[in-house]
This record gives sequence, C-alpha cells and structure tokens, in this order.
Amino acid sequence: MTARVLVVDDNPSNVKLLAARLAAEYFDVLTAANGAEALSVCAAGECDIVLLDVMMPGMNGFEVCRRLKADPDTAHIPVVMVTALDQPSDRLMGLEAGADDFLVKPIDETALLARVKSLARLRATLDDLRSRAARAAKLGISGAACLSQGEEPSGRILVVDDRRSACEAIVNALKPHYEMELEPDAAEALTEGAAGGYDLLIVSLGLSGYDGLRLCSQFRSIEATRQIPILAVAEPEDRARVLRCLELGVNDYILRPVERAELVARVRTQMRRKRYVDCLRQNVEASLEMAVVDALTGLHNRRFFDGVLPSMLEEAKRKGRPVSLIMFDIDHFKTVNDLHGHEAGDRLLQGLATRIKSLIRRSDIFCRLSGDEFVILMPDTRVDVGAKVAERVRAGVAGAPFFIGKNRSIAATISIGLAESGRCGADILREADKALYRSKEGGRNRVYFDVASPQAAPRAPGFRVVRAG
Amino acid sequence: MTARVLVVDDNPSNVKLLAARLAAEYFDVLTAANGAEALSVCAAGECDIVLLDVMMPGMNGFEVCRRLKADPDTAHIPVVMVTALDQPSDRLMGLEAGADDFLVKPIDETALLARVKSLARLRATLDDLRSRAARAAKLGISGAACLSQGEEPSGRILVVDDRRSACEAIVNALKPHYEMELEPDAAEALTEGAAGGYDLLIVSLGLSGYDGLRLCSQFRSIEATRQIPILAVAEPEDRARVLRCLELGVNDYILRPVERAELVARVRTQMRRKRYVDCLRQNVEASLEMAVVDALTGLHNRRFFDGVLPSMLEEAKRKGRPVSLIMFDIDHFKTVNDLHGHEAGDRLLQGLATRIKSLIRRSDIFCRLSGDEFVILMPDTRVDVGAKVAERVRAGVAGAPFFIGKNRSIAATISIGLAESGRCGADILREADKALYRSKEGGRNRVYFDVASPQAAPRAPGFRVVRAG
Repeated sequence: MTARVLVVDDNPSNVKLLAARLAAEYFDVLTAANGAEALSVCAAGECDIVLLDVMMPGMNGFEVCRRLKADPDTAHIPVVMVTALDQPSDRLMGLEAGADDFLVKPIDETALLARVKSLARLRATLDDLRSRAARAAKLGISGAACLSQGEEPSGRILVVDDRRSACEAIVNALKPHYEMELEPDAAEALTEGAAGGYDLLIVSLGLSGYDGLRLCSQFRSIEATRQIPILAVAEPEDRARVLRCLELGVNDYILRPVERAELVARVRTQMRRKRYVDCLRQNVEASLEMAVVDALTGLHNRRFFDGVLPSMLEEAKRKGRPVSLIMFDIDHFKTVNDLHGHEAGDRLLQGLATRIKSLIRRSDIFCRLSGDEFVILMPDTRVDVGAKVAERVRAGVAGAPFFIGKNRSIAATISIGLAESGRCGADILREADKALYRSKEGGRNRVYFDVASPQAAPRAPGFRVVRAG
Repeated sequence: MTARVLVVDDNPSNVKLLAARLAAEYFDVLTAANGAEALSVCAAGECDIVLLDVMMPGMNGFEVCRRLKADPDTAHIPVVMVTALDQPSDRLMGLEAGADDFLVKPIDETALLARVKSLARLRATLDDLRSRAARAAKLGISGAACLSQGEEPSGRILVVDDRRSACEAIVNALKPHYEMELEPDAAEALTEGAAGGYDLLIVSLGLSGYDGLRLCSQFRSIEATRQIPILAVAEPEDRARVLRCLELGVNDYILRPVERAELVARVRTQMRRKRYVDCLRQNVEASLEMAVVDALTGLHNRRFFDGVLPSMLEEAKRKGRPVSLIMFDIDHFKTVNDLHGHEAGDRLLQGLATRIKSLIRRSDIFCRLSGDEFVILMPDTRVDVGAKVAERVRAGVAGAPFFIGKNRSIAATISIGLAESGRCGADILREADKALYRSKEGGRNRVYFDVASPQAAPRAPGFRVVRAG
C-alpha cells in the first residue's frame, strides 16, 4: 500500500529527513515550505496524506489544518500534525483543528510509518467511494452533500473493557455526546458489535481473558463490523501491539491514562469520518436505486417491472400459484394536460400514485410504466382477489377529486384491465392491455377482465365481464 | 488487513501448524480435512482465501481448485496451492487449475504471510465491488455477467526490463496471446503506463539505473495506473524485495529464469482477474447511468432533465447567452395505444426517438419526460436557430411512417412548442408547454412559439406565430 505524502515544514533539513525516510519506504513524497504552498498542493488533488508542522512563520499548522478541513474538496485528506511541543493542550488544539493524529518531535519513525500506512489504506477505500460519488454528481444524480467535517456528530459506541474504573471514565467522558454501551466480555462484544448498529468500537488491548488484538481482527473479519471504526485503548508500554493493531485495520488509538479532552477529540474525528463514508455509501446506494424508481411518483419504473415480471411468472409457474396483474390509465388524461398544463398533469399523477398506494396491499408491486400508464403486479393472487383490489382502486380514484395546484382540484377516473397468469401465462401484460382497451371501449371508469367462459368470471361492484376476442 | 483463511489438508498436524501460524498473525482461520468440506465452506461464503493441499485422498487439490473456479459464486476466492512436490509440471497444473499461487513444503512462512496479506488486500477491494454488483442484481439492474474465469482473455501488456535477452524471452512467450510493448527506461515506462491503456505491467526488479520497487510503488500512486495489475520479475536471491513488493501492492511475481509455461499461467490469472474487476466496475458505472436514462428509448429521462435545466439556465444567464427549448408530443398518441396496443405504442416511441436523434445536433440534449412527452434542450441557441431545429424535427417525423411491428407501419405527427430563455428566463419549460398547447389548438403537426411582438418571431416552413396570451 503506497500513497502520495505531502511533507510541510519551514525547516529544510526537517523536510529532507522526513522525505528521505518516507521515500525509503517507497512513498511518493511531495514537499511544501509553508502553509500557502501546502494548501495549493492539496487543492490540486496532488496528495493523499499531509504531514504538517505546527510552528511555521505566517500561517501556522493549526490554521492550515483548519482550512483544509473547512474546504469540501480537501476535507477528506488525512492530516498528521508534527510538533516539537508536547503539551496536551497543543495536541488537543491539533485534534480540534481536525487533525487525524499528532506526533511529537523527535519523531518515532516506526510510529510515523505505521500511521501513514494505515492512512494510506483508508485512502484507498475512500478513493473508490469518492470517485463513484463524483461520477453520480456529474450525471446530475448526486444525493445529499457529504461533508467530512461540520456539525457535531452523534452516534452509538460500544466500549469493550473489563477494568471497571477505566471504562467508567471513558463512558463518562463520552456520555454527553454519544449513546454508550459497555461490554466487559470479548465473546459477547463480538455478538453485540455485529448486531448493535454501532458507529464506533472502543477496544481495550489489555483485556484480562482475551487478546484485544484478536478481538480487533475479528471485528475486521466479520461482515457486519468490517466497516465500523475501531479506537484501541492501550498502555504506553504496549507500543509494539499498538503499531500492530494499526496494521490490522484499527483506525486510531489512545494511550492510558486516557485524557478526557483527547478522547473526545479522537472519537469525534472517527465519528465524522464514519458519517462521511456512510453518506458516500448511501449516495451510491441511492443512485443505484434511482435506476428502478420513477422520479415523478416514486413508484417502481418500467425497468424494474421488466426485470421483475419474468422471474415472478416463472416462480409462480414452478409453485403452481397465480399472479394477477392490473393495468390502468387515466381517462382523458390528455385533456388535463391540454387544459391545465403539464405541471397540473404531473400533480394529478403524483396524487393518484399516493392515493392508490394506500389502497393496495404491501405485497402488491405498483409501477408507472410511462405517462399515465400504470400496472400493479399481485404475486400469489387469484383473479377474484385481484378484481377486488382493482375495484377498490377504481372506486378510490373516482371517489374524490385531486389537487392540481393553485387551489384547483379536478375529478379523475381510471380504466382498468385485469389479467391472471393461470389463464394467459407469460402473455399477462398483453392480456391486461387488451382488457384495458375493452374497458375504454365499454365506457371508461371500470374494470375489465377477459374470460373464455362467463361463469369463471369474478364479480365485484363495477366489474364487467366480456367474452374473449 | 485481516481475512478469513480456510486451511485444507488431510493431515491434521499440517492443518494445526498452519492454522497456528496464521492465527498468530491474527487471521481468522477455518479448517477442512478434505475437498468436499472445503467446497462447502467456500459455497457458504465463509472464507476469503483458501490454502489448499494438493495430495488428498478422494478429491485432490487440483480438482478442488478447478471446481471452485468453475462456480461463479466461488470463482473470485483466491486459492494458494500447497504441496510437497516441487515439479514445475505440478506448479503448472495448479496454476492452470486457476490457483493464484503455488507454495512448496516445507512452507516458507514469511512468503506465505506476505502472499496471504496481499490477497487479503485484494479481497477488500473486490468485496466492495461485488456487494454493489449484488445489490444492483437484486434491484433487477444487473449488467453483463462477470466471470472471474472462462475464456482466454486478451489484452495489452507493458514489459519494463532493460536486459535485452531476458525481456525478449518474456515478449516471445506472451506474444501469441497478448499485444506486447517493451520499455527499457523506467521514467518512460511511467509516462507510457499512464497513457497506454494497459491491462498488465510486467516490471523487472533488477533494472540497472532505477529501483524496480520504486517504479512499482509509483505505478500504484498514479491515478491512471493504480488499478492495473503488476507482475514483478525477480532473481531468486531477491527474496526480501519480492516480499516487499507484494506489500506495496504488486499483484504477483515470477522468479528468473522465467519458465515460459509458468509465466503464461500467471499472466492469465492476472488478466482474468483484471477483466473480472473491470466488468464489475463497468456494471456499477452502467447502473449509475441507468438512473438518468429512459429504459424504453435510451434517451435522458426526466430526472436528468430536472437536474440539468437549472444549471444550464444559470450558466446561460451568467454568460449572457440564450437557451432554447423544444417540447413536443405525438398527435393522437392515445389512439395508437388504443387501436394497436401499448406494445405498438412503445415501438412508435422508440422509432421516433431514433429518428429524431439523427435530426438534432450533438450539443442538443434530448429527453423523454414521460409517455409521449419529450423535450430537446439547446444550449447556446437563439430561438431562430431553435425554430429551424424544431421544423426539421417536425418535418422528419411527418415525412415517413414508423414501423410498429408485425409488418405494420403507421404515420405519426408531432406538435411542438418552442421557448427561449432570453425571453422567459427560468419559466422556459412552462412557456414551451403553453406554446405546445397552442400548437395543438392550431391544428397539430406544427411548431409554435409565443412572442410578445410578431416581428421578433422567427419564420421557418411550417412555423406559426401567435401573440402572447
């Protein structure tokens, strides 16, 4: 795993040293001698990770970090602050400026490399998601704007620690901001973590009966917890294991004694990143779903219908169960558009979709094929039951007018054609279409079903029977 | 990076040894004592990587590997064959059965771990893509079926090697199957690799003037080559650097003297994997695009139109340039559906879309809003030019009948409303809608444009001018 690392320091020999060390590990190294340069390299999208000196003339590191994190185009780039000062307040200032980690000079090279490698892995995951979201945005189907910074995130945290007083301190520090759960037992924690919808796992590496590293690794192996960030809590002398846990995919760590403000800051960073990644994932997910959803009514679209019908018919045939299908359109819909404009027509379509949704069953699949042409697919439904649904829908539409904007309402009726797979097999859509035509011909605002023998026909109020042909 | 590793061996002490070693590195280890067990663990989706013994009673390792690779549900799981025999023919049999690597007992643990870690990283990337593709399939929008095995892949390969005879041997071995390019210079190779659309990079770790590892790392850093698989070529004594290159994201390696059959087999594995990942990526990409494409006609849909119109109007306003918009529908379209059925109506819509696409300009954006309602957005277009496009479209539709299936054709005409942003600003869609209504009222098969002053009106054959109101 490699990455383009930007080293920012006003001292040329510091830059040279760090650059050489990183290059020896085969990172691609860029350098900047001040904040302004650093901002422009980041804005140009030329680096994946920033190592940022705090004390620089002009703009100091805190300010550079704040600016990077305030810009939606650079906010996702991980920043590691590097400083000569080891004041807790300094570390805190860095974390509060949005830094992902804080290292103290002289730099412990192993720790630095472990951190940079861990951030490089993170970047690889993010890159893929970000490029997909960017592609969606370019197509004009961007969902919610995802920000890696911004308001205080909330969320659920599971703390796995069996030292009572230590974990009470952690829970107390975070309780004002997050929903906290505590689990001293590692095996239980695995089950709970997988089931609980957590946003962060805080794992003690010093559990008495279980190897904390193994627990972290297991959280990373299980599908349900693979994406949940992990913050490890370790003793200062646990250094080797801390570095190992970063390799295993743990996102961050904090050393005991846990300092309250540092804990809050590190947790906030993880939570924000989690929200950001979740948001990107949801956008990609939502844009996938858009492919099968009609934008105007929110119903399934024709693409979805074309995909689902053959497999539903096949399954029905295999199981010997019937599928019923309703096809309908709005009577004289063209007139609505012509008299009131297409906007009014759109309102009518939306109102109709909403009303009909409330009249059908959960198992029915309601699709807009196009224009004012709709179908309702009813799995595992005989035509007599389908006829009842159809009549309920017909009566529901005719029963009350629809709001079409500007205090105007109009009455509307629909003509319905009904068909059942047991009678027409794969031709069900064509049969329903034919029945719909008969329904129009018969005077509109009615339900038709084409039967070979009249006695087989179901009867319901407003339901008409015609002979085939 | 961790993973669930399945160890398959009929010898319990071998299993125990390997399992302990992997568990010590925090891998999740599963075990199987024979081929049938192994196949069922893999089919259940319980493991990410398989370590497979060759010599087992019943089904041997080659057969297990072949079966795993033949099943679309398990073909993506990386397999490392482990054997006591060090016959080149054996190694070859494993690679030809589809194995990703072949290790010889006694196992070199460092090499094993490096390989397993590298495969675990690969899995993480694949997992994301596979889950998205599975989600799309569930929504009924799956694209092409992606197979990680199957027919012989073709592709372009760049060989970076400055030892003439060595690289000639490589080129000759692969030339019958792939398009080969040779580049002895590392800096040139970086440029060419980024520009050349390669499917595989073969990099010598023994370049005379450049560190081959650095070159691999740079290929991994650059956006354009990040996803292209790399096969490293190394001397047997280069062991430490080979393991390091796997860490850097190199996909596989081969030791000199390069054995022709082994090279071909390893290259084929990488090529197949590349094809598989490309196919998954393309499917995800295609399903993103589906969200803004009308399934029936292939035109942009309403969602796309709603997204693009405001930004286009805003840009036009800023630059002081006009946008023209055509809105049209098919005259008496309802009658087509009623007389000939919805299928015939769909054919008409498709034929109309295809014909009109050939009549408009590349810069025009043609969308189906719904049913028989279409718009054509014309950026940077004055209404007089827009009127010419509109008239060309009107005449083109009226000029020849449309095929609607079963040797039937029907004549169709459209009514067009035209509007220009310079006159109506953001209300352009409503204005075009109004003009379309006038066009209907005026007798259909014509183009209308609503102007405040008649002299401002463009004239074109079949073009009518009405006063506002």
